[in-house]
Amino acid sequence: MADAEPRREALEERLRALEERLRLLEDEREITRLILSYGPLVDSGCAQAVAELWEPEGVYDVDELLMNGRREIAAMVRSRNHQGWIAGGCAHFIGPPHVTVDGDEATAVGYTLMIVNTPDGFTLRRATANRWRLRRTAAGWRAVERTNRVLDGRKESPDLLASC
Amino acid sequence: MADAEPRREALEERLRALEERLRLLEDEREITRLILSYGPLVDSGCAQAVAELWEPEGVYDVDELLMNGRREIAAMVRSRNHQGWIAGGCAHFIGPPHVTVDGDEATAVGYTLMIVNTPDGFTLRRATANRWRLRRTAAGWRAVERTNRVLDGRKESPDLLASC
Amino acid sequence: MADAEPRREALEERLRALEERLRLLEDEREITRLILSYGPLVDSGCAQAVAELWEPEGVYDVDELLMNGRREIAAMVRSRNHQGWIAGGCAHFIGPPHVTVDGDEATAVGYTLMIVNTPDGFTLRRATANRWRLRRTAAGWRAVERTNRVLDGRKESPDLLASC
Repeated sequence: MADAEPRREALEERLRALEERLRLLEDEREITRLILSYGPLVDSGCAQAVAELWEPEGVYDVDELLMNGRREIAAMVRSRNHQGWIAGGCAHFIGPPHVTVDGDEATAVGYTLMIVNTPDGFTLRRATANRWRLRRTAAGWRAVERTNRVLDGRKESPDLLASC
Repeated sequence: MADAEPRREALEERLRALEERLRLLEDEREITRLILSYGPLVDSGCAQAVAELWEPEGVYDVDELLMNGRREIAAMVRSRNHQGWIAGGCAHFIGPPHVTVDGDEATAVGYTLMIVNTPDGFTLRRATANRWRLRRTAAGWRAVERTNRVLDGRKESPDLLASC
Repeated sequence: MADAEPRREALEERLRALEERLRLLEDEREITRLILSYGPLVDSGCAQAVAELWEPEGVYDVDELLMNGRREIAAMVRSRNHQGWIAGGCAHFIGPPHVTVDGDEATAVGYTLMIVNTPDGFTLRRATANRWRLRRTAAGWRAVERTNRVLDGRKESPDLLASC
C-alpha cells in the first residue's frame, strides 16, 4: 500500500479545508443570530440580555443617545422612556445584516426600523443605518461598538452603509 | 504503519463532528426558508402551499383568527377577506427569524409587518410578534404551531418575543 | 489490514458528500450577501458597486424604470432623482431573500420596502415584490435579471412571488 500515506494526507487536507469553510459559516451565523436577537430582547424589556450582546465596555452610539458599557445599555432598556414604547406597542424591526468576518474581528451593516403603535395606527418612527463592530471573545462573539444613525438626510448615515 | 488505525479513527471522529455541525446549519437553513416562504406564498394566494408549511393538524393562532389544521389555514388564504388584500396590494413582510433547534424540535422568533396599499399610499396595517414551534417530520421540518400577536401594547405580544 | 481500502473509500465518500452539502450553503450565503448588499450600496450612492452586482449585460427591470446593462444601472444611482432620495433620507430595506440554487443558476424571491424621510416623518413610498435570476460566473455569483413590481394590486406583482 505504497500510496496509503499520500492518500491519507490528501484526506486530511480536504478535512482541514472543510473545517475552515464551515467555521466561517458558523461565525457569520452566530453574529447574525446575535444581531437578530436585539429586537425581540429590547422589545420584551430583557435589559440584562440586551446588554450582554456587548462586551462589558462595549459602546452603543445612537444619534439620540450614547451608551458606554453594559450598565448604561441595560439602563436604557429599563428607562421610563423605553418602557413607555413597550407599553404602547413597539417593534425594533432589524433587517438581515450583511456580515463580514476577518479572523477574530467582524463588521456588520444593516437597517433597523423603529415602528410605534399610536391611536392612529402603526407609524414608522425611525429608519436607521446600523454598523456593528464585533469581536470573538471567550464567551463567543460580542459587540464592541454599534453605531446607529437615522436616515434623515444627514451625511453620516449613508456613510455608515457604504462600508458594506 | 503501526499508527494507521489511530490516525484513521481520528479522521473519522473529525468527520463525525463536521457532519453534526453541518446538520445544525442545514436545519436552521431549512426552517428559515420555510418561514421566509410564508410571505410570498400567502401574498400570491398559494393556499395549499401555505397550509403545507404546517403539519396536517398544525395550528395558526393569530389574535384576529385561530386556525386549526391545514384545511382552515388554506381556507383563510382563499377567503374573500384575504383575496381582497391581494387585489388591493399587500405585503406580509417577514423579518429574518431567530431560530433555535433542539434535536427534532425547534422554535423561531421574529416579526411580520402587514403592509397594505391604499388610495393614500402604503400603510403599515399591523406589526406582529411571531413565535413558531416546529418539528422534524418525514417530509422535512413543518410548523406545529405559529402564534402571532399584534404589538399594540398588549402584554402577550412582547412575551412572545422574550423566548428569543 | 484487509478492510483498510473499503474504509478509506467510505471516508472519501462521506467527505465528498460533506463538500457538496457545504457548497450549497456557501452558494446560498453568497447570493444572500449579494442581494443584501444592494440596499446599503444604493443608499450610500456607490454606483459602480451597485452595477457590479449584475453581469455586464444584466437587466434591472423596475415598474418605474427598465435598465439594461451595468452602465444604465450605475447611471440610475448617479441620477439627480436618486441623489435626491439620498439627500432627503432614504432606505431601500431589503427583506431576507428566499434563494433556490440549481447548479450554476439560481433564483431568489423577496420584498423591498422603499422608505423615505419627509417633513412629516418617515413614509413607506413603495413595497415591491422582487424576483432575481442569478448565475455563477468566474467572478462569483452575479445577477442576470432582477424584476421589481410594486404591490399596488397589479396582477404581475404577486405572480413574481408565486415562484417561491
